[in-house]
Amino acid sequence: MSDSIVLRSYKKEFDYSYTSGAYATIEMILAKPQIVRSVYVHSKYSDKSGIEDLCNEKKIPVVYNDKSFARINEKENSYVFGLFNKYYCELSYSRPHIVLVNPCDMGNLGTIIRTMAGFRIFDLAVITPAADAFNPKTVRASMGALFHINLKEYSSFEEYQSAFQNHVFFPFLLDGKLTLSLDNCPVTPLFSLIFGNEASGLPVEYSTVGTGIRIPLSLNVDSFNLSIAAGIGMFIFANRNGLI
Amino acid sequence: MSDSIVLRSYKKEFDYSYTSGAYATIEMILAKPQIVRSVYVHSKYSDKSGIEDLCNEKKIPVVYNDKSFARINEKENSYVFGLFNKYYCELSYSRPHIVLVNPCDMGNLGTIIRTMAGFRIFDLAVITPAADAFNPKTVRASMGALFHINLKEYSSFEEYQSAFQNHVFFPFLLDGKLTLSLDNCPVTPLFSLIFGNEASGLPVEYSTVGTGIRIPLSLNVDSFNLSIAAGIGMFIFANRNGLI
Repeated sequence: MSDSIVLRSYKKEFDYSYTSGAYATIEMILAKPQIVRSVYVHSKYSDKSGIEDLCNEKKIPVVYNDKSFARINEKENSYVFGLFNKYYCELSYSRPHIVLVNPCDMGNLGTIIRTMAGFRIFDLAVITPAADAFNPKTVRASMGALFHINLKEYSSFEEYQSAFQNHVFFPFLLDGKLTLSLDNCPVTPLFSLIFGNEASGLPVEYSTVGTGIRIPLSLNVDSFNLSIAAGIGMFIFANRNGLI
Repeated sequence: MSDSIVLRSYKKEFDYSYTSGAYATIEMILAKPQIVRSVYVHSKYSDKSGIEDLCNEKKIPVVYNDKSFARINEKENSYVFGLFNKYYCELSYSRPHIVLVNPCDMGNLGTIIRTMAGFRIFDLAVITPAADAFNPKTVRASMGALFHINLKEYSSFEEYQSAFQNHVFFPFLLDGKLTLSLDNCPVTPLFSLIFGNEASGLPVEYSTVGTGIRIPLSLNVDSFNLSIAAGIGMFIFANRNGLI
């Protein structure tokens, strides 16, 4: 069996995208088999029978066509990729959220998604404009964790805010009121941790939407990398609120 | 004044390297003026007098030569870069350390250095083979924080270990004995947090060098990104031990 699509380098306007590498592809098949259109396996891949068996079980076509890898792989060097239909999610009203306001780096976005899944935070609001969550680079940085979480884009923070009035908002700000430590993390299971973009952080107006959180830092740096700040905030809140 | 060097794209064997961008260049001038050979400023740069004054004060030559940017900049788009002599550091016997065993990604290495400086952990041991700490990509990911820390390479972990017998070693392992939480972080100011490389983590033998630390994670991911794991470990240990 083969897919009728003519394989091309990914573009944001496509209604499909690719996973690259066996790990992310298998994560996708296990988490969301219904979105997988086909799996491409290179003749040099060493564990063909494992992925074949999994695809057969889920009734997913396996394609052997080494030439297709040259078209899709770009700079990467993968022996497996998966072609999948993009999909739409709604966020949960009863679980904590992460909110990213205009994240612009696909590596950061994917890394944050991987960290979320690791800490059992499964709902992500992305305020646009933002990096493309379905771009193969984001999927790869997430190590396939994208398929374990719900991600929804909002065109403004206000749109998100009005939809989740029961969540307790914690904007992460360089001059946030609460300097986070191991001993003062708020106990509030329905939290929503809000992070600004890589270049400028959150605008100061966000201090009005909830308790501003400051990660303490020395005078030697002016901020932390976005995915580091988000990782630390997520660990502290997830641990204090019993998620991990 | 101008430097006698013929500018070329960076190579690891050079005894000099470059900072790219005004931020990292200024960080370097402030932290380590003695290593700076010259600062290149593009005619389009908007704050010439600020950087000129700083260089004059530190007796660092400023070069205006737009053509040099094409030679050095590669993919980046900076209007300022600094040419500096590589230098050698010794680690402190009386302060905590981070140890990276064979880190291979320059972005991760730079991000970890930036996070260290933010949490006042100023000594980094790198076990080779490893990503090049002086590569302009590492310097850039560190946002110039490289110049605030001491970094020393060791050809084996044993070499590092025998030099710092008073440090208490904490290898970060997927099956570490102590599952880290906000409430059980060891109080031990002379800590040494040890992290493995991106692909494979630390070999299991490291469980014998000290108390293995496990960052709790769900079954949805098989590990965290190296810089995320290091960032979380550093925040917890730095906060519990009074560094921040």
